[in-house]
Amino acid sequence: MLKKIDHIGIAVHSIEKARVFYEKVLGLRCERIEEVESQQVRTAFFPIGETHIELLEPTSPDSPIAKFLEKRGEGFHHIGYLGDDIDHVLAVARSKGCRCINDEPVPGAGGKKIAFLHPKSTFGVLTEICAREDD
Amino acid sequence: MLKKIDHIGIAVHSIEKARVFYEKVLGLRCERIEEVESQQVRTAFFPIGETHIELLEPTSPDSPIAKFLEKRGEGFHHIGYLGDDIDHVLAVARSKGCRCINDEPVPGAGGKKIAFLHPKSTFGVLTEICAREDD
Repeated sequence: MLKKIDHIGIAVHSIEKARVFYEKVLGLRCERIEEVESQQVRTAFFPIGETHIELLEPTSPDSPIAKFLEKRGEGFHHIGYLGDDIDHVLAVARSKGCRCINDEPVPGAGGKKIAFLHPKSTFGVLTEICAREDD
Repeated sequence: MLKKIDHIGIAVHSIEKARVFYEKVLGLRCERIEEVESQQVRTAFFPIGETHIELLEPTSPDSPIAKFLEKRGEGFHHIGYLGDDIDHVLAVARSKGCRCINDEPVPGAGGKKIAFLHPKSTFGVLTEICAREDD
């Protein structure tokens, strides 16, 4: 069971440049900036209602985000849904023939467990399911 | 002042095909399907938490969504923020040099007033500001 959209991930070349739009035009506030070394990415979170905009900036040319930017340019990268049982969602997805990027949940930003469904199985939308460690 | 993300717009070739993923894998429920003739688009809304996934299917080859699909394929199309004063957001956006697709709010799905900011000014994300008619 999914509870809400936890975040919308947006790939940008520079958090410092892009945050000006979210702060000065949309009036959002940057809650925190966090580096996820395993993904070679720096992330900035802007709360809005019950969800967050998550800006993603590559910290290395080998980062998956650097490759995304090269291929697609800046813009939407993924959508993250908060659930309470990732394993169940993954099992349902597999049973429906959906391609899972992660067979099991892996650690993500903010101390969450996360797993991705492949855009080829989700009508073009890289889809993350996440849960809090204590759920 | 923006209150929440009202919806995430996702371009698809076929609502009938894509809804299977949202319903059977993610467990969401299609609340309504609505045609917006002015945009030559059929939209399907799936509530999740305080927001919605909005699938967008072109109803004509001349639809902006048909052109988007041709160029970019299926996937994220736009993000819609709910505010209480679109004119104020547009004025702030213009004052910061942001390119507005709509100079004034226009009618959108669900009886809302909407206005779009151009992705060239928003780091690649087509951004909609919307408000309820009675706000």
